[in-house]
Amino acid sequence: MAEQNGLKNRGYSRSDVEERRAAAEAFTGTRLEKISEYTIDPEASSKNIENMIGTVQIPLGYAGPVRIAGGHADGEFLIPLATTEGALVASISRGMSVINSGGGARAAVYADYMTRAPVLRVNDIDHCNKVIDWIDSNMDRIEAAVAGTTSHGKLHRIDKYPNGRSLFLRCLYETGDAMGMNMATIATEAICRLIEKETGAVMVSVSGNMCSDKKPAAINMIQGRGKTVVAEARIPKDVVESRLHTTAAAITDTNCRKNLVGSSMAGTLGANAHAANMVAALYIATGQDPAQVVGGSMTITTCEDLDGDLYICVRMPAVEVGTVGGGTRLPCQQEALRMMDCLGEGKAPKLAEIVATTVLAGELSTLAAQAAGQLGSAHAALGR
Amino acid sequence: MAEQNGLKNRGYSRSDVEERRAAAEAFTGTRLEKISEYTIDPEASSKNIENMIGTVQIPLGYAGPVRIAGGHADGEFLIPLATTEGALVASISRGMSVINSGGGARAAVYADYMTRAPVLRVNDIDHCNKVIDWIDSNMDRIEAAVAGTTSHGKLHRIDKYPNGRSLFLRCLYETGDAMGMNMATIATEAICRLIEKETGAVMVSVSGNMCSDKKPAAINMIQGRGKTVVAEARIPKDVVESRLHTTAAAITDTNCRKNLVGSSMAGTLGANAHAANMVAALYIATGQDPAQVVGGSMTITTCEDLDGDLYICVRMPAVEVGTVGGGTRLPCQQEALRMMDCLGEGKAPKLAEIVATTVLAGELSTLAAQAAGQLGSAHAALGR
Amino acid sequence: MAEQNGLKNRGYSRSDVEERRAAAEAFTGTRLEKISEYTIDPEASSKNIENMIGTVQIPLGYAGPVRIAGGHADGEFLIPLATTEGALVASISRGMSVINSGGGARAAVYADYMTRAPVLRVNDIDHCNKVIDWIDSNMDRIEAAVAGTTSHGKLHRIDKYPNGRSLFLRCLYETGDAMGMNMATIATEAICRLIEKETGAVMVSVSGNMCSDKKPAAINMIQGRGKTVVAEARIPKDVVESRLHTTAAAITDTNCRKNLVGSSMAGTLGANAHAANMVAALYIATGQDPAQVVGGSMTITTCEDLDGDLYICVRMPAVEVGTVGGGTRLPCQQEALRMMDCLGEGKAPKLAEIVATTVLAGELSTLAAQAAGQLGSAHAALGR
Amino acid sequence: MAEQNGLKNRGYSRSDVEERRAAAEAFTGTRLEKISEYTIDPEASSKNIENMIGTVQIPLGYAGPVRIAGGHADGEFLIPLATTEGALVASISRGMSVINSGGGARAAVYADYMTRAPVLRVNDIDHCNKVIDWIDSNMDRIEAAVAGTTSHGKLHRIDKYPNGRSLFLRCLYETGDAMGMNMATIATEAICRLIEKETGAVMVSVSGNMCSDKKPAAINMIQGRGKTVVAEARIPKDVVESRLHTTAAAITDTNCRKNLVGSSMAGTLGANAHAANMVAALYIATGQDPAQVVGGSMTITTCEDLDGDLYICVRMPAVEVGTVGGGTRLPCQQEALRMMDCLGEGKAPKLAEIVATTVLAGELSTLAAQAAGQLGSAHAALGR
Repeated sequence: MAEQNGLKNRGYSRSDVEERRAAAEAFTGTRLEKISEYTIDPEASSKNIENMIGTVQIPLGYAGPVRIAGGHADGEFLIPLATTEGALVASISRGMSVINSGGGARAAVYADYMTRAPVLRVNDIDHCNKVIDWIDSNMDRIEAAVAGTTSHGKLHRIDKYPNGRSLFLRCLYETGDAMGMNMATIATEAICRLIEKETGAVMVSVSGNMCSDKKPAAINMIQGRGKTVVAEARIPKDVVESRLHTTAAAITDTNCRKNLVGSSMAGTLGANAHAANMVAALYIATGQDPAQVVGGSMTITTCEDLDGDLYICVRMPAVEVGTVGGGTRLPCQQEALRMMDCLGEGKAPKLAEIVATTVLAGELSTLAAQAAGQLGSAHAALGR
Repeated sequence: MAEQNGLKNRGYSRSDVEERRAAAEAFTGTRLEKISEYTIDPEASSKNIENMIGTVQIPLGYAGPVRIAGGHADGEFLIPLATTEGALVASISRGMSVINSGGGARAAVYADYMTRAPVLRVNDIDHCNKVIDWIDSNMDRIEAAVAGTTSHGKLHRIDKYPNGRSLFLRCLYETGDAMGMNMATIATEAICRLIEKETGAVMVSVSGNMCSDKKPAAINMIQGRGKTVVAEARIPKDVVESRLHTTAAAITDTNCRKNLVGSSMAGTLGANAHAANMVAALYIATGQDPAQVVGGSMTITTCEDLDGDLYICVRMPAVEVGTVGGGTRLPCQQEALRMMDCLGEGKAPKLAEIVATTVLAGELSTLAAQAAGQLGSAHAALGR
Repeated sequence: MAEQNGLKNRGYSRSDVEERRAAAEAFTGTRLEKISEYTIDPEASSKNIENMIGTVQIPLGYAGPVRIAGGHADGEFLIPLATTEGALVASISRGMSVINSGGGARAAVYADYMTRAPVLRVNDIDHCNKVIDWIDSNMDRIEAAVAGTTSHGKLHRIDKYPNGRSLFLRCLYETGDAMGMNMATIATEAICRLIEKETGAVMVSVSGNMCSDKKPAAINMIQGRGKTVVAEARIPKDVVESRLHTTAAAITDTNCRKNLVGSSMAGTLGANAHAANMVAALYIATGQDPAQVVGGSMTITTCEDLDGDLYICVRMPAVEVGTVGGGTRLPCQQEALRMMDCLGEGKAPKLAEIVATTVLAGELSTLAAQAAGQLGSAHAALGR
Repeated sequence: MAEQNGLKNRGYSRSDVEERRAAAEAFTGTRLEKISEYTIDPEASSKNIENMIGTVQIPLGYAGPVRIAGGHADGEFLIPLATTEGALVASISRGMSVINSGGGARAAVYADYMTRAPVLRVNDIDHCNKVIDWIDSNMDRIEAAVAGTTSHGKLHRIDKYPNGRSLFLRCLYETGDAMGMNMATIATEAICRLIEKETGAVMVSVSGNMCSDKKPAAINMIQGRGKTVVAEARIPKDVVESRLHTTAAAITDTNCRKNLVGSSMAGTLGANAHAANMVAALYIATGQDPAQVVGGSMTITTCEDLDGDLYICVRMPAVEVGTVGGGTRLPCQQEALRMMDCLGEGKAPKLAEIVATTVLAGELSTLAAQAAGQLGSAHAALGR
């Protein structure tokens, strides 16, 4: 009874957390000692979680420093990475060191829109066409509806995908330095309510999955979601040989057979070695949404042998990050962002370029290790 | 100088961690106070991370309890979830409560193999065919090579995908209660070394991306990787109406237009509302590899209106989890596993069924909220 | 010798055809009697084939008449279908008859652009960005270059997909009533030559596969290629029962499990029963490019049970058809087009709506047959 | 009236055809003169079409001869191609000539199964598991049910894909020299009727789309459908330069950026230049099902620069062809098959290797032309 009462405590204070954890310990018959040793203020997490009973401590390390000359990130950066996969940080760090030897990485952000794609029910093709016409003729009213829900976000465009009695709209927003999904959801709901009122269409779901959030979707790989980022580096021939113990030709061949041909044969969205690893470690460290690792996993990695030098590049169509809001409000995560001067307004594109550069370094290191036939032994030595 | 020396410290002791963090603070000009307040033993993390400077504390809450009658999980479970996304835990918990009102969830594991897929270079079709023949005729020697690398893993099968001068092999292993990727990598390298020696084929990469690890790949969605799990529940008509404020017909319609049609139009692998959210929260809480959220994101969610009752089901083809090794060695994560009696030998299939049930609950709650038109307002209220 | 000479004859006259066929008969030791019984003028085929030795006669039937109220097709149409698959024409015809009983089909064309997507090699991200800037600043010159190659085509837009040293451009054209691929290729080559001259980028291929022609590509399913068309029909409850011997609920259930869930589980682009069948039969009859059946195969079919009535809809994102040029110049094919008043200028969108309606009828009939459990027996009876 | 009567004539005799055509002419107000000039016997087409009114004559040419050393095709072959796309036959022929200069192509068939994948409705997971168990325990009865429907086909395996209340089975058959889809459909229906009777599962559709027939499906690209075929050639350096006016390095680079990277960025199943063109032309010439061009379109083309020589290879996972039954019964098509000694029993794998070699030649020619920057001008000259 007491136990059930504790479990149903919905408060956010430290004592609420204590009561809940005690109830959870009683219910599960488990001591939650380490979980209870958190040092963050539970009240400050009230927008990030419910039913809090403590924290999980994820080991945090760093890779780098790495030199980046990007459109937004410019300088040397030490990259915070939270992971439990042995060898990962060391591998990324090796990649960064090699990239530095080639003069550093370059990076650019090409597009930056958060999306939400509701699905509306209409009566038939004729009604569908009328709803589309109404939208096209009333963009000013739609923009006003959006403005009524957010001062940070701005509607960029609405793409329409009619399908008989289902009309999918893909709304693209500029969301400043917030990742922006919530902003986009609320604004889109306002748009839909207006359309419903004026046209008789019915919002079946504010998300009709053409957004597409946290799902591996070709639409994001092609059209982008969040930031579309590219990062590249050129590694001189002698560095490839002395540091990576292989050649540009061998790495290019490995990338072709593995990342390009192998991914194609496996029916993969994207073509990379392990982009999700770097994305996950950096997202968790910096309070990003770890489920959006999915967007990062659609990276395409390419290599070229330029007269013995190695050119390597990653294209990331869906880097969904923010430097305000969400998990970036939490204290450890804020410190991690500050390590790269990426906390707060005006920093999100910079963070995106750092994400891409980190992926670049991890791809380089792993491809080189595989080209040199060392993957198995590397893991064995670092004992994961 | 001192700073650079500190950054290059490769030790695993607490004082090494302190020295590195001090160097990182100096390099970045940032105080890392909260990051330094870890309570876990850095030496114990030596197999999980390099360059450790502290930890990131992720808020941990719980959903449930939820009742599961699975092939492996049987009973009532309180589910630990680590997240920074407000409303997520509350939503999953609501789903579980509704599932309980219908008598609980059922779940089953259908397949359980970890894969590693090297790519070998051969001379031509003729050579490729000879290599395939050699493999088929020497499975005993190949199994012996595997046995030389692991006592826990067992080779189940090798699938061959010839492509001219590239021969892809997909090796399937039983890996006990470990997630097993490392085991599979090392064993596969041994297989390749043997094939190289006997046939003249050359291992280009121990992973040729048909594995496919941490990439959204159709091959995993179709053939499975890790555990293929299904979970289902039936929610009585009155519960749907009183608790979810909608109907089975409306939820089924939402699922159809959104998860099935919308995902198809977006070119998505899988068809779900937000499976990756539940997977990420549970994986981070329990020390799983968060990059493998990608495998979980390929879930297919289906609904049916059974005379007013709601039937809901999730099919997860790639639940890549372990209850030994990797991040499960860490103290907070061990406590989270123990909450569900999922730590150690004999528990991995049970954990997989719990993962699927948690995804089921989250899908149910979100679909119901969207069917009832409440998504935007729910987020607004919980103030993410 | 004589034989080899004959085989190398490159002429287009009837006697050239005869000589070649005689040489082919000698080379292969095969009498080509039926192939030789063509009645079309070989000179008139000179733009359609080389090395002609005769024709293949494909049986031509018709389905319908079917009633269509489209944006372009309006009236009753008899649909010419060339096929060798027994039961196909009968099945489509049955679908059309049922559609007529419900008042006919509605259809609409939503977009109409032919695409060509070259890939250019650039030096690095910096150069890539300069090339993109040049394009954005010189659209007038680019349009002039296009105008120098075609009077029928018009450049609509250029989408840019940068990827390090590869810059992909997707050029969208209005091509009037021609399918337009050749026009688009020639215009795109002119664009690339201009870009090469002004920016130093190098055209690696006029088609970089983001076009994407005759390949099953998500980019076409999402963004469309050729015409994006939707067709729908509502079949009254009594007609479903009396003519199709099943119910709207059963057909909707079949469509859901088979076309939506099954396609998702199979990793399919599109979700339909056999759209490619109808597309192939109509394309071959009317001189369309049969390899573009691939675009048609990405159809999404949806059904709804509207109080016992059946609503059925097909969304075809890539109907790549023309009513001038290509195979529409041939005499049998011209007659087939004339049967529907679809030959010549101003008819391509109409043909596209007829294609979608024909697919709708075929989908309806097959889904109904499967729902009624009759597929195997239907084929057995018609003895394919 | 008379017209309507004519349209409803369901006979197969020549006079029935005449009556129907006259009615069609009256209905459409169109003279169908060329369509009426068929020379094949309509009665003989009775298993291939309904409502026949004549034929469409498709120009037939040839490419080659090409030298093949395959597991089944061995010798020099003249390849019949039916197309209306100018330049296609000439391009393929050029590719074959170049292949011959390198000593000819090699080819191999790796797997050969036709599939049909029904979807059954079950009550829940528990029932699903019982049905799976029943199948596993009663394979002898299932095989007997298959044997009751066909003497040519043989069940190879049944793969199970459980998804809650939907159980998908993928039945794999050896179908001899028939393409085998009908055989597979009828046998699968028999299997389902048996399962229904014994387990209470209900066949929702004999095809649950995991087959997957005539849809671009990853399952076929990965696991194969029909024949999985690979063909390759090595072109000496001097031939590449003198005949193709480019280099192995340039062709390899074009293939990489276009077919591999471009296809990946477009979200394509397969990675080729225009495999569907060759497949369509050869399928139409030889009476294959032209809708199965879709399976052929998932080809993966790879190139390598071997010290200046060009290595080129195509992997075709789904060559769905037959040399008996279906359209191979028609007279022109039989002659086309005889040209390659591919008519009748024991010839289907040989035909599959010829298909792959023809695709190889077309890919080679187009890639070389694009590498040499000639695509636009080639089309302009041949004036399609």
